Amino acid sequence: MRFDGRETLQLRPIHIETDYLKHPEGSVLISVGDTKVICTASIEDRVPPFMRGAGKGWITAEYSMLPRATEQRNIREAAKGKISGRTMEIQRLIGRALRAVVNLEAIGERTVWVDCDVIQADGGTRTASITGAFVAMTMALEKLSKQKKLSAFPVMNFLAATSVGILKNGEAVVDLNYVEDSAANVDMNVVMTGNGEFVELQGTGEEATFSYSQLQELLKAAQDGITELFEKQKEALGEELTAKIQGAKQR
Amino acid sequence: MRFDGRETLQLRPIHIETDYLKHPEGSVLISVGDTKVICTASIEDRVPPFMRGAGKGWITAEYSMLPRATEQRNIREAAKGKISGRTMEIQRLIGRALRAVVNLEAIGERTVWVDCDVIQADGGTRTASITGAFVAMTMALEKLSKQKKLSAFPVMNFLAATSVGILKNGEAVVDLNYVEDSAANVDMNVVMTGNGEFVELQGTGEEATFSYSQLQELLKAAQDGITELFEKQKEALGEELTAKIQGAKQR
Amino acid sequence: MRFDGRETLQLRPIHIETDYLKHPEGSVLISVGDTKVICTASIEDRVPPFMRGAGKGWITAEYSMLPRATEQRNIREAAKGKISGRTMEIQRLIGRALRAVVNLEAIGERTVWVDCDVIQADGGTRTASITGAFVAMTMALEKLSKQKKLSAFPVMNFLAATSVGILKNGEAVVDLNYVEDSAANVDMNVVMTGNGEFVELQGTGEEATFSYSQLQELLKAAQDGITELFEKQKEALGEELTAKIQGAKQR
Amino acid sequence: MRFDGRETLQLRPIHIETDYLKHPEGSVLISVGDTKVICTASIEDRVPPFMRGAGKGWITAEYSMLPRATEQRNIREAAKGKISGRTMEIQRLIGRALRAVVNLEAIGERTVWVDCDVIQADGGTRTASITGAFVAMTMALEKLSKQKKLSAFPVMNFLAATSVGILKNGEAVVDLNYVEDSAANVDMNVVMTGNGEFVELQGTGEEATFSYSQLQELLKAAQDGITELFEKQKEALGEELTAKIQGAKQR
Amino acid sequence: MRFDGRETLQLRPIHIETDYLKHPEGSVLISVGDTKVICTASIEDRVPPFMRGAGKGWITAEYSMLPRATEQRNIREAAKGKISGRTMEIQRLIGRALRAVVNLEAIGERTVWVDCDVIQADGGTRTASITGAFVAMTMALEKLSKQKKLSAFPVMNFLAATSVGILKNGEAVVDLNYVEDSAANVDMNVVMTGNGEFVELQGTGEEATFSYSQLQELLKAAQDGITELFEKQKEALGEELTAKIQGAKQR
Amino acid sequence: MRFDGRETLQLRPIHIETDYLKHPEGSVLISVGDTKVICTASIEDRVPPFMRGAGKGWITAEYSMLPRATEQRNIREAAKGKISGRTMEIQRLIGRALRAVVNLEAIGERTVWVDCDVIQADGGTRTASITGAFVAMTMALEKLSKQKKLSAFPVMNFLAATSVGILKNGEAVVDLNYVEDSAANVDMNVVMTGNGEFVELQGTGEEATFSYSQLQELLKAAQDGITELFEKQKEALGEELTAKIQGAKQR
Repeated sequence: MRFDGRETLQLRPIHIETDYLKHPEGSVLISVGDTKVICTASIEDRVPPFMRGAGKGWITAEYSMLPRATEQRNIREAAKGKISGRTMEIQRLIGRALRAVVNLEAIGERTVWVDCDVIQADGGTRTASITGAFVAMTMALEKLSKQKKLSAFPVMNFLAATSVGILKNGEAVVDLNYVEDSAANVDMNVVMTGNGEFVELQGTGEEATFSYSQLQELLKAAQDGITELFEKQKEALGEELTAKIQGAKQR
Repeated sequence: MRFDGRETLQLRPIHIETDYLKHPEGSVLISVGDTKVICTASIEDRVPPFMRGAGKGWITAEYSMLPRATEQRNIREAAKGKISGRTMEIQRLIGRALRAVVNLEAIGERTVWVDCDVIQADGGTRTASITGAFVAMTMALEKLSKQKKLSAFPVMNFLAATSVGILKNGEAVVDLNYVEDSAANVDMNVVMTGNGEFVELQGTGEEATFSYSQLQELLKAAQDGITELFEKQKEALGEELTAKIQGAKQR
Repeated sequence: MRFDGRETLQLRPIHIETDYLKHPEGSVLISVGDTKVICTASIEDRVPPFMRGAGKGWITAEYSMLPRATEQRNIREAAKGKISGRTMEIQRLIGRALRAVVNLEAIGERTVWVDCDVIQADGGTRTASITGAFVAMTMALEKLSKQKKLSAFPVMNFLAATSVGILKNGEAVVDLNYVEDSAANVDMNVVMTGNGEFVELQGTGEEATFSYSQLQELLKAAQDGITELFEKQKEALGEELTAKIQGAKQR
Repeated sequence: MRFDGRETLQLRPIHIETDYLKHPEGSVLISVGDTKVICTASIEDRVPPFMRGAGKGWITAEYSMLPRATEQRNIREAAKGKISGRTMEIQRLIGRALRAVVNLEAIGERTVWVDCDVIQADGGTRTASITGAFVAMTMALEKLSKQKKLSAFPVMNFLAATSVGILKNGEAVVDLNYVEDSAANVDMNVVMTGNGEFVELQGTGEEATFSYSQLQELLKAAQDGITELFEKQKEALGEELTAKIQGAKQR
Repeated sequence: MRFDGRETLQLRPIHIETDYLKHPEGSVLISVGDTKVICTASIEDRVPPFMRGAGKGWITAEYSMLPRATEQRNIREAAKGKISGRTMEIQRLIGRALRAVVNLEAIGERTVWVDCDVIQADGGTRTASITGAFVAMTMALEKLSKQKKLSAFPVMNFLAATSVGILKNGEAVVDLNYVEDSAANVDMNVVMTGNGEFVELQGTGEEATFSYSQLQELLKAAQDGITELFEKQKEALGEELTAKIQGAKQR
Repeated sequence: MRFDGRETLQLRPIHIETDYLKHPEGSVLISVGDTKVICTASIEDRVPPFMRGAGKGWITAEYSMLPRATEQRNIREAAKGKISGRTMEIQRLIGRALRAVVNLEAIGERTVWVDCDVIQADGGTRTASITGAFVAMTMALEKLSKQKKLSAFPVMNFLAATSVGILKNGEAVVDLNYVEDSAANVDMNVVMTGNGEFVELQGTGEEATFSYSQLQELLKAAQDGITELFEKQKEALGEELTAKIQGAKQR
């Protein structure tokens, strides 16, 4: 039994509230336990300079925390005048992960801006962001699709993420909350697609290391957890959109 | 009748949800029509360098918008690496307004950090921020008070704000939404205390001017609107806390 | 009698020296007591990106202080690498105020850059800047007008500003110097046009509040002071230019 | 056979030149094929503020490229005034990896600053940096150790890194050069210790995904490559120092 | 005869107005032809961190131009958020030059902040700044001296600067104005002391070179010009202060 | 005899290794004693905005030090987010010096980017940079010339630089190392062309001054030293390229 009463391989309660905000093309409020993230997707009708003329789209993500999303108040990055290394790592990860399941040619020369703003943090904010952002992005792209602006439905696969880790006592657990995360020996973020493939794997020993057999145990735990997340995403997106993703043509 | 069906002197629906977040000492989600702001108050046990040793506290505010709080996505100030003039003006205004109703000596050498994060914008974000921030701040100070850390209850008066303006047709209206605000000739933000005094008055002709009699009309409208806001704050804070504010010793 | 021997409603001595610098299209050195500001107006033959193609002009202002304009030396904003909130507020105010009395269509797609550089500060630098900038801007626009580049004379009205305030003893005074300003309970900047209308009204209780009747008293004092300032501006601009302003077609 | 004549599982030629620079406590020039990195280690007799008083040391890394390390000249980050997300990710990775094999308590309140400056880039700069930095750091810590300043020899294990990937043709390869890296479907950086455990695993599908069996194949290839790198490190460090690492007490 | 009617070796008219501003310990407005610079000297009772405890003082300079000091308006460095290389070079030069004639031990642990703000530019702003700053600094130090705060009078020598150059026609001239400066082949700034020694010599061929005999001619011209500047400084400082400088003990 | 065994007018050993890096059009590693600088030259097929359409080229330089090029580790300018005044001065000097011996018209609308990265510093880094950068730039331009892209061979003259100075004991020395440089009374950097003319002369008294006769002695010493440097450059460039420079048409 864990700190908060969960089994080692049990996720925290997940809720995905869609159409959370009025203006964005897609938006959700995702809660994973006490971690709450507003994910929005905005469509811009052009791509960044390095991609112009290539006839394909781009997906980029930004990530931020409210100053008091955390136990102690953090100084705003806008006030510091620069973005931390941690934030950059996370927003690059989110963007890369989403791009892996989208047919960028089908989007045309458009950019999807994904914003993940953590309003309450209790561990796992980056994986909750990916899981929620996938839903917001899909809804925004569905709007474009319904307007007949796309050559094909561009979302080729489900995408979700969770964290796994090895606690000080050697136990492998899934979906670490903040207290567990701070004390874990090994922390791994896993991003997978609906057909069971990996998109990202980021495992880190925190002044510690891990063996090949521990890695295998962690990956199994991650896979089971992510399978549950796909169910939540399907509920949030509804049957019709789920079917569209499952039927989308691969690149 | 206005654009959205309101009378000229009618406010939009107001909701103040208290204890909205888990970590901050005080937090609310305030909605004024479609404008939604998360206001939090955090207590820090020291004051900024310019105030050290003076035996009194400080209240400071920060303001931000989610990128997609608005119709068009805005670039994050953290990404730009600097805070806009508009943001600075607003956060200085919020801080100054709150300090006018708080007995800073009673706080002792502590800082109250107030964060106003607009998650959805439809005009009046700065006045909604002040109205919501007052509630969050009061709840945070009440916690200190309950811990017997304060020499006296420091909130000496209610404080709320609204906007008033003169539309192109010459009509004076209260609580302008975004569409009205963009087209108004005159825009005025009014911050008042529970005993009917002014704290801030910021009236601006947008490539236009206004006469003394128009000013009088606007101030009357503001006063009526703010009186309604006080009722919402009292509901949110509850009877006991309302009584404490009304009984607080003036400086 | 006030600190420096003035009556409550008496302005400090005003001097406006025109054509103070060689290069700018318009330039003045304005002194309001010991407050001295160099105001220049520069014409650029294009507008900022957000206004292109609209067929109208733009007026923008920048404000700065020499490091030793003040009693204590201030760090330069260039050395800090960023502009303070106070500076931004002031330069936004100056630009907005000037735009209220200029027919921007008549300027065509040009920008008037107004620079207000305080070389000596003794309170009231923002209101002195507005009063001086109006003269510098008018002289620069007159040059364009004489070159037959404008469809109409664009300055539609005089514009000047002063401060009013309530001292600790409850007395309402006009044109506060630095010592008075630092100690005042209420501080209000008022910008008015030659026909007695308001352009900007910014009243602030400094950890204090003010009543409606106090507001009325302050506005009366401001109006009388500003009327004197118009006389100084007329002397500086000369009869011909004064007549042109008074005869200019309203928008 | 690969692009440059190598077998799929063959590393490029490795050279590690020790004591490359005069001033640093430890320094190497590491070449991995055409990738060349100067790695230095500097000892500072204090730790960052967040670690003061904890009685243990810290290791931090910085990474940079000469502007013309690459085919096309890059703008310097100093000229841009900010560090890119890629650079931050890499320097955080290097620091974290080194800390995993060092007994920070044994260092005492000191910081080891590791600088990795790429003078020529041909893929794999981050893994070459880790492999070279380990040698530079060990030599710097050995100096401290010889001065009897440490409670124990602090380097507990060898540490090296390489990249593995899956090319467009589905082949798994090790130590990708720039041309291969740009075109690979999957790219994975693996950091391992001398006793065969993982420290970091960062696998990324570039608009692609990878299966569990592909992952197993990649990890095997990485392990074999890294085993070769340990031999090069041992040659560079010499027998005595190799023995000290192998005999170091674990935390 | 030159462009503006001067002989080749003739300076422009020089005026030094002392006590130009109210707040600084020393201040002058220096005019060299149409070049006008406000120079102030401020005393701070501490030194920068790198000099603490050394028992001696420091002199540092900052330099800036009003945006419209020049023919075309320049963007403020504060608005750009960084200081240009040209500005840095000039302010380092001014500080270094002043320090060469001051007994820093005699100042004690104090900093003299010298600010040179160009309000109108017509060539030679850096040399006018040095010449004016010397007067402002001397007056500020005299105030300290009169307050018996110094162990000895610290200004050991006069210091002034001018520019010399070689025009396109091969003629050597002194004190170049902007038009001459822009077109000169060689431009040299010379800073000298009252006893005829050099402090700084900065000669630059602008896509051109100069011979040893040309150098000799330029240095002679500079020396004659600077001798005249010393006379202006003596007039500005008065007989008593002139005598103090001439009698000051050398280090 | 000097600190390191040299005669007063003896240079340190010089080595210039050409084609040091793989990617740049021109690159050298220059060693002047223990000072080591990587100099590269990169060709870009356009000029900066201020030169567009003028039909001529541009040469610009950047300079940096590895953090541990020095005895004490320096903070990276990229980490500080801004470039120091010293760096700016040096890179402006290098660019200006190189432009003095190049026929910019012959280059056409191209930019030569010169990068000087100091990997080990022991005094004289800016003069070593100029001497090495000349060789790298010439080799890059020779490549363009061989591709028949230039109207004429653009390098019109050799260019090299050294430092001279006056030590505390009054002795004039050439090519100061770090220890000498730190303690010298006078420090002068001299840049000369192959035909014995000056390009730059920057002499500075460090809280000291120098006489006309000392200046003459320093210039003689510099000239002799630079003559030796030309020989090293000729060796590095080879006979054919040396002949091309010597036969190049002057502007």
